[in-house]
Amino acid sequence: MFMSELTIQFGQLVRKYRKERNMSQEQLALLCNMDRSYLGRIERGEVNPTLEKIFQLADSLKIPARSLIP
Amino acid sequence: MFMSELTIQFGQLVRKYRKERNMSQEQLALLCNMDRSYLGRIERGEVNPTLEKIFQLADSLKIPARSLIP
Repeated sequence: MFMSELTIQFGQLVRKYRKERNMSQEQLALLCNMDRSYLGRIERGEVNPTLEKIFQLADSLKIPARSLIP
Repeated sequence: MFMSELTIQFGQLVRKYRKERNMSQEQLALLCNMDRSYLGRIERGEVNPTLEKIFQLADSLKIPARSLIP
């Protein structure tokens, strides 16, 4: 399983903004067209996300992509 | 070949900062532990880079990773 300080911090930012928006993992995953379990792995820092995925998450959270960069 | 407006803009930022630092593709690729040809593909927008790779490039260019986010 891939994991690093960087992906952990990224996942924490995704979770933080998702909760600020009162969205469930299911809701955000649906907006991003991904499995809820995959979003769970992202939030736990177990995924090294691509640039496209980072933007997809940021768009769904209605924040600038830079806000998700640790 | 993967390519999008996003990866093209990312690649242009990498090239811009590399040139500002008067580094060749060879020099930057060496610092990032990647092939020069792979860096060429990144700069042309043909790669959807991961978060780890974005940080590796930013570190080698001595800029914050956010500077590479379009």
